[in-house]
Amino acid sequence: MPPDPGAPGPPRPARSVVERLLSVLGAFDHRNPALSLSGIARRAGLPLTTTHRLVTALTEWGALERDARGEYHIGLRLWEIAALAPRGVPLREAALPYLEDLYEATHENVQLAVCDGREVVYIERLSGHSAVGVRSQVGSRWPLHATGVGLVLLAHSDPEFQREVCEAPLAAFTPYTMTDPAVLRRALAEVRATGAAVSDRQITDDALSVAAPVRGPRGDVVAAVSVVVPVAGARPHALIPAVRIAGHGISRALGRRPPSGPR
Amino acid sequence: MPPDPGAPGPPRPARSVVERLLSVLGAFDHRNPALSLSGIARRAGLPLTTTHRLVTALTEWGALERDARGEYHIGLRLWEIAALAPRGVPLREAALPYLEDLYEATHENVQLAVCDGREVVYIERLSGHSAVGVRSQVGSRWPLHATGVGLVLLAHSDPEFQREVCEAPLAAFTPYTMTDPAVLRRALAEVRATGAAVSDRQITDDALSVAAPVRGPRGDVVAAVSVVVPVAGARPHALIPAVRIAGHGISRALGRRPPSGPR
Repeated sequence: MPPDPGAPGPPRPARSVVERLLSVLGAFDHRNPALSLSGIARRAGLPLTTTHRLVTALTEWGALERDARGEYHIGLRLWEIAALAPRGVPLREAALPYLEDLYEATHENVQLAVCDGREVVYIERLSGHSAVGVRSQVGSRWPLHATGVGLVLLAHSDPEFQREVCEAPLAAFTPYTMTDPAVLRRALAEVRATGAAVSDRQITDDALSVAAPVRGPRGDVVAAVSVVVPVAGARPHALIPAVRIAGHGISRALGRRPPSGPR
Repeated sequence: MPPDPGAPGPPRPARSVVERLLSVLGAFDHRNPALSLSGIARRAGLPLTTTHRLVTALTEWGALERDARGEYHIGLRLWEIAALAPRGVPLREAALPYLEDLYEATHENVQLAVCDGREVVYIERLSGHSAVGVRSQVGSRWPLHATGVGLVLLAHSDPEFQREVCEAPLAAFTPYTMTDPAVLRRALAEVRATGAAVSDRQITDDALSVAAPVRGPRGDVVAAVSVVVPVAGARPHALIPAVRIAGHGISRALGRRPPSGPR
């Protein structure tokens, strides 16, 4: 997880105005999308008067919005500016037609994710009425080892970084989650050998995901695409070609040229 | 347009640190998604030293990211927090299955938008490989009178607000754009009568859109859904039922109960 300036705590002295302002924004997360003024103050570790002043300025600018109940939310203006993040909307726009194709072929959850720190961040998720319930949301983070997209991103990352992740404690979400470094290392080698990852009941015990890499113009893996299906009746190996095709298509849209020579 | 603190100009005195920080973020827009330090300083109207200090703090926190060429972009951390905006991702998540249905039925651009000030802001756009080129992007703004979603949102807004918009100058994007207030008023009455808007070559001269309202739990129109198709061969009235069905579906997902009695 990134450093969390929104974590509860006593007021910390000597924070600059910039740090205080960012800690107000950092008070909001997936569990706290709406906060009262005192809730913001508590989570940001700021006095109420300071919080009031900062929240007023942020609301006037449109970074926050106040609802009829007096609670604050992230505002549309901040959302608009944040939509310019290159690993957010622009990546998503390039990928969208290929994600649509994969959705139409499967009618299951289709996901696009990038690596940030030791986690995956979901940039996009397409899902229909009948797709299996998943815990990922756009903008949410999950550990690399427990997701299909994370295995793909980790398998193609710097070897030193891979070693660090494998040696750190590996959180378990189901009885099936890989928590043994040796098992994880073998899984990463298989991802590199096959060009795809199968993540079986690692986050929830009723779903599995199949993921493939997305490469940037220089051939480095910049994102991963996956499809999440119910475990019951799943034939993950039958899904691999479709997911790999989507990954190739997105890579091409990002300017990747396939390696020359026999393939 | 909202007040634009990112507009170029000489340094303005007496801006608070909060205002200066927000003007750094406001320096980024669709035409300027990547900026050098001096570009940020110029667009934010700030001295280079101040800009450097603010940009450093924003980069450390993850609100900005610096690329290999030394240019700054909006960072993934700001994108994650901004994804919490209730009129952004949560609305989009509720709408997505219905947008998918509409996309599968048409294979054209499917859009979801909300009203902010005198403009529409696009929250979502699905499009395949062969959909007609459109100028809207996720997070981009367009005037209410020139878009199908805008006509729907305007037709169901406060009468006083409608009068203001009709009486203000109406920008033209093609020879077909409605710029006569009387014509616009008649178009709005028709939207209310038919439950849908047809916006014919108002933004580009090769596309038209068909839009329908999305209602919140209290019955007020909170968003609009549309499909954009090439003008050549278009049968807009044949699209209206599909777009209205999508609007009803999203309204229901937002907690809207249909009015009782004969419909």
